[in-house]
Amino acid sequence: MARMKRLDEMTSKEFAETVDGKTIVILPMGIIEEHGPHLPLCTDSLQAEHLAERLAQRFGALVLPPLRYGNSSSTIGFPGTISLSFDTIRALVKDIVSELVRNGVRKVMVLSSHAGSGHLCAIREAVKDVVIEADGRGIVVRGLVVSDYEVLYGLTDRGIDPRDGHAGDMETSRVMVLRPGLVKNRSQAKDSTKKIPDFLVIAHPEKEWTGIRGFPSKASKKKGQMLEDMAFEEISKLMRTL
Amino acid sequence: MARMKRLDEMTSKEFAETVDGKTIVILPMGIIEEHGPHLPLCTDSLQAEHLAERLAQRFGALVLPPLRYGNSSSTIGFPGTISLSFDTIRALVKDIVSELVRNGVRKVMVLSSHAGSGHLCAIREAVKDVVIEADGRGIVVRGLVVSDYEVLYGLTDRGIDPRDGHAGDMETSRVMVLRPGLVKNRSQAKDSTKKIPDFLVIAHPEKEWTGIRGFPSKASKKKGQMLEDMAFEEISKLMRTL
Amino acid sequence: MARMKRLDEMTSKEFAETVDGKTIVILPMGIIEEHGPHLPLCTDSLQAEHLAERLAQRFGALVLPPLRYGNSSSTIGFPGTISLSFDTIRALVKDIVSELVRNGVRKVMVLSSHAGSGHLCAIREAVKDVVIEADGRGIVVRGLVVSDYEVLYGLTDRGIDPRDGHAGDMETSRVMVLRPGLVKNRSQAKDSTKKIPDFLVIAHPEKEWTGIRGFPSKASKKKGQMLEDMAFEEISKLMRTL
Amino acid sequence: MARMKRLDEMTSKEFAETVDGKTIVILPMGIIEEHGPHLPLCTDSLQAEHLAERLAQRFGALVLPPLRYGNSSSTIGFPGTISLSFDTIRALVKDIVSELVRNGVRKVMVLSSHAGSGHLCAIREAVKDVVIEADGRGIVVRGLVVSDYEVLYGLTDRGIDPRDGHAGDMETSRVMVLRPGLVKNRSQAKDSTKKIPDFLVIAHPEKEWTGIRGFPSKASKKKGQMLEDMAFEEISKLMRTL
Amino acid sequence: MARMKRLDEMTSKEFAETVDGKTIVILPMGIIEEHGPHLPLCTDSLQAEHLAERLAQRFGALVLPPLRYGNSSSTIGFPGTISLSFDTIRALVKDIVSELVRNGVRKVMVLSSHAGSGHLCAIREAVKDVVIEADGRGIVVRGLVVSDYEVLYGLTDRGIDPRDGHAGDMETSRVMVLRPGLVKNRSQAKDSTKKIPDFLVIAHPEKEWTGIRGFPSKASKKKGQMLEDMAFEEISKLMRTL
Amino acid sequence: MARMKRLDEMTSKEFAETVDGKTIVILPMGIIEEHGPHLPLCTDSLQAEHLAERLAQRFGALVLPPLRYGNSSSTIGFPGTISLSFDTIRALVKDIVSELVRNGVRKVMVLSSHAGSGHLCAIREAVKDVVIEADGRGIVVRGLVVSDYEVLYGLTDRGIDPRDGHAGDMETSRVMVLRPGLVKNRSQAKDSTKKIPDFLVIAHPEKEWTGIRGFPSKASKKKGQMLEDMAFEEISKLMRTL
Repeated sequence: MARMKRLDEMTSKEFAETVDGKTIVILPMGIIEEHGPHLPLCTDSLQAEHLAERLAQRFGALVLPPLRYGNSSSTIGFPGTISLSFDTIRALVKDIVSELVRNGVRKVMVLSSHAGSGHLCAIREAVKDVVIEADGRGIVVRGLVVSDYEVLYGLTDRGIDPRDGHAGDMETSRVMVLRPGLVKNRSQAKDSTKKIPDFLVIAHPEKEWTGIRGFPSKASKKKGQMLEDMAFEEISKLMRTL
Repeated sequence: MARMKRLDEMTSKEFAETVDGKTIVILPMGIIEEHGPHLPLCTDSLQAEHLAERLAQRFGALVLPPLRYGNSSSTIGFPGTISLSFDTIRALVKDIVSELVRNGVRKVMVLSSHAGSGHLCAIREAVKDVVIEADGRGIVVRGLVVSDYEVLYGLTDRGIDPRDGHAGDMETSRVMVLRPGLVKNRSQAKDSTKKIPDFLVIAHPEKEWTGIRGFPSKASKKKGQMLEDMAFEEISKLMRTL
Repeated sequence: MARMKRLDEMTSKEFAETVDGKTIVILPMGIIEEHGPHLPLCTDSLQAEHLAERLAQRFGALVLPPLRYGNSSSTIGFPGTISLSFDTIRALVKDIVSELVRNGVRKVMVLSSHAGSGHLCAIREAVKDVVIEADGRGIVVRGLVVSDYEVLYGLTDRGIDPRDGHAGDMETSRVMVLRPGLVKNRSQAKDSTKKIPDFLVIAHPEKEWTGIRGFPSKASKKKGQMLEDMAFEEISKLMRTL
Repeated sequence: MARMKRLDEMTSKEFAETVDGKTIVILPMGIIEEHGPHLPLCTDSLQAEHLAERLAQRFGALVLPPLRYGNSSSTIGFPGTISLSFDTIRALVKDIVSELVRNGVRKVMVLSSHAGSGHLCAIREAVKDVVIEADGRGIVVRGLVVSDYEVLYGLTDRGIDPRDGHAGDMETSRVMVLRPGLVKNRSQAKDSTKKIPDFLVIAHPEKEWTGIRGFPSKASKKKGQMLEDMAFEEISKLMRTL
Repeated sequence: MARMKRLDEMTSKEFAETVDGKTIVILPMGIIEEHGPHLPLCTDSLQAEHLAERLAQRFGALVLPPLRYGNSSSTIGFPGTISLSFDTIRALVKDIVSELVRNGVRKVMVLSSHAGSGHLCAIREAVKDVVIEADGRGIVVRGLVVSDYEVLYGLTDRGIDPRDGHAGDMETSRVMVLRPGLVKNRSQAKDSTKKIPDFLVIAHPEKEWTGIRGFPSKASKKKGQMLEDMAFEEISKLMRTL
Repeated sequence: MARMKRLDEMTSKEFAETVDGKTIVILPMGIIEEHGPHLPLCTDSLQAEHLAERLAQRFGALVLPPLRYGNSSSTIGFPGTISLSFDTIRALVKDIVSELVRNGVRKVMVLSSHAGSGHLCAIREAVKDVVIEADGRGIVVRGLVVSDYEVLYGLTDRGIDPRDGHAGDMETSRVMVLRPGLVKNRSQAKDSTKKIPDFLVIAHPEKEWTGIRGFPSKASKKKGQMLEDMAFEEISKLMRTL
């Protein structure tokens, strides 16, 4: 198994000697966002960063410094949520991936544990723009923009409950593995299946749900480890298309 | 049952006398896009426009002039696709909905039969921006951004095959109902389940699939009518949240 | 005489077989805008769309789906006017013409019956941008951006009254031909020559005039047909420069 | 008659004591642009600046530092033309007028001797944006955006030849009055009525005409003075609407 | 002494209970950038992050997740430099600070060890925009945008050599304290005082210098600690103006 | 000594015959900005314009029409300051320099006597963008963006008092030379060393200082001439790097 390397802990010289068109570079992304009364604002970041490191190890990939800043619609009315605009996320990812390409990188994965649809769309638009611009100059770049939660939500045949999501059973379980000290007051984290009506666009989503979707009460370390392993294996498969 | 009205066939005076905060205004959207060798480039537009008219009739809503211009990633390499940028679609929808709000409208539905993820995201970002800006001025606007295909894809328990999509059984069936004269050379429309690898971002998606996803060979008028009726009923339910 | 074809009613295959550098593509544009108490908000769209179809027939051109969305300054204070920003109109036309060029089209006419100066300027800037960008890549594109009203206003030697304009004699006459059922309450449409002072820029133009400029009382079907024929012949001449 | 003052030759204290809601501020604009082999690149600037000073004197207005930078389409292929983009001109004028409004000014005239349609449209869009934004905050601003050439072209009943324009009889005559030393090689300035076909948008307008439209051979100082006087009187009338 | 807290390790509930108008929030910024053959690409990030934590501890401030992405001109031709555009940095900082303000924060410090002039200007413009917009809504926000290197460069009377800068004595010394394992091949890090000519703007700055300015050979852990202490004390003084 | 020429007083023909890759073009920039009760708002413009003309004469350079519009943060609360946004200044300079490059110019100096950090940064970003874009097309452009005050502030070893700046001894002295009639009420111009706290970003800088930094009471014509001569010689050295 290859050793994971943080891209920015290398010197310029090491970078020049190491990186070529076969190198996979991974950008882990999260967000600072309400996750119930019991999980930290960095919940998504913790998951993406840990998963990125495991995947980098398996694939001999380089990991970029994580971006703990993202875009969210549904939690914007809750304390502590820092939501960057669609355009800022897109510009940010576009510049980073562009600069990687300028440095000779041709395979990039953005891995975001935050799976907000605007957030992922901004990232995809950014990567697509870079890939198409590079193509116009005869450079073939392949990008993978994936959220472990998009992947997990698709695995209903393997026990994933489609009613569980933000700050629910899955996220609580995974943070219990990664940073148990940051899980607090679980008794205050009430299970809830209330959600914002589908397709509705309103100014105050925080009035339509509790900030938790699913079942934090069912969380366990064991489940957390299992979920991460599932995500790890599924994303490994996707990375082989790079 | 109320009578459907086209918003722009009214005079200024009729508009002033008719429209108030309870009026629902519907914007039908499609795209000019490859739909196999057998369906017209306006396939999505035909579906959205017809459905919008039926829904407007049921709800006494006003229908805006349709927008047959949209954004697509996956068909951009095929002849005849006209794909506007994300930003243009967003600006367009934002300006239209903004102007409706300036004119006193408070309930808007954008109905797009094209369900490209960037396309729908651009529309949602636009409507969200208007809703939030209005909220900042104390005006409550409710928006609904929905694709009949997002709705249909969710109905796997009612016989929808998740492998059928763009230019497949469902779309062929529906155009056979709406404009049978525009369905041509069905024998050339080969069934196919090949698709662009999940989450991959590449410059030439047209090399990864045939431009058809699913089973045009299975299409029938009867199925077309049934699908439209299903979409009509499901979207009617959503419209009650407006 | 060639047969008019709607571009988006073709299949991708037909498009590929039909369109080349000699094809003329016409984009008809209007606006949703106050036109007195007697004419519909879509007055400009009706005229552009009908004229585009006649011209397409004469020249064997393709007609794009019409855009009934435009930009206006002078009617923005009247009920029912939907005015998109300068930048949105420019982006919209730029993307559409760009995509045509990407698809091999080299001759494009935008025909707008709405002749607002900002509106036409936005369209011209858009087409110019595409033409110049294409030139930078060695591709020769020719564009024609024309309003039948700019053309008619220039024909004072053939009986056009320079005091007649928006919702006046000419527009009323033409809608009487195209959609007589949409002309209403003509007795309420008062003749007026009041206009916004030349070159003045103010926030409330609707306080400076009645929303009618000219003489709706003089309108007749006969005149309407004659005006359309004049515009048709004059624009035919312009199209020969493409 | 009031004394003309240059706004930026005052001190901050004088400005504070002098300027209020009744003050008219004039921004003279020109462009650096080919004007035949015989007139300087600053031809338009000379005219606007001199006229602005005379008008300021009559109305007790303040004159801003001139902007000798503008936007042009038709002369862009000739040596020495410096054409700023539409967006830059718009941003520039918008910022200047905005800042005047922030400083308490409520009446602004932009006087541009360059009458390119994109150029004037950019200025009008800018002033309109400021006027409408101010209106939203309850501040009434009135703007006048005028070109002496738009005014002169309208005076065909007073001897203006509609075939004379850029670098022709009128402009040559006026520069002969203002800066005779900058008029050179008049024998090389051939009369010409060749023009870019109406409404056509092409990449190389410099191939369609000579860079002169009209009759430089007919120019005279006397005519130059008469034209400026005509423009002076006509624009004085317009300024009374401010 | 207060305890340093990472803002995003709190829960939403803790955030709501902790943060008010007196809270100081610190955003540490660095860049991924060439720092000679001997220092890691994350050199600036290491310094900013450690200093931010010490300052947060002294002032009971909250530390945001660091941004290891910045803008650079002078190192852009060397391997491994990832330089985001001016506009992206500005948008990023603006959104983050805006969101803090929306959450009730009124005192923000951005601390960047990268002192590129465009980079710092982008941050200042961003913070200024937020501060002025907040002021327009009656909210008083105070921002501090500071680089420890701007501070140190000003201390020439305390032994700072004005010829030492990027990847020189000071930076080498400080990384030797913070992450000695990341300092490599010091023998290859040649002292150099060659620099890009003042005020010159060119496309290939990497041809004008070695990527080191100053004297890495003189570096020592002792000096590194002393420099950090100096920066710590000086920035503490500045923070008292917040 | 070469003769100074104003670029825009040439004809298109003269421009074509004169300008080539060796021509240096100088753009003088100032701002309309409070300069105490005693100096005119155009103080910075006067200095830049005069210096540009002297330098042009020495180097046979061409002088562009001056831009008396700039960006300022610190004087924005004082009457008469007209501050354009960062983006407008950047766009303006970028378009001008781009157009020079399109016309064959390869050496450009922007000389701004206003030395606001945002203002100079906007200019530098603009010139850098043009230089890098030109490089991408194989065209070598060299730019120099310099403020005589940045240069003078660096000459503390030659008697420049670091506490003197905006509207102080130096500026007063220089305007006394250039336009003595515009210096007024010197008795009201109080010496002051109060300044906005370093690195602080606030909404109302005008509350933190008097609008004068330094010692207007010490000004003299003799000093004014000496300062200009110093700036002239120092900038001459810099111009040799072009």
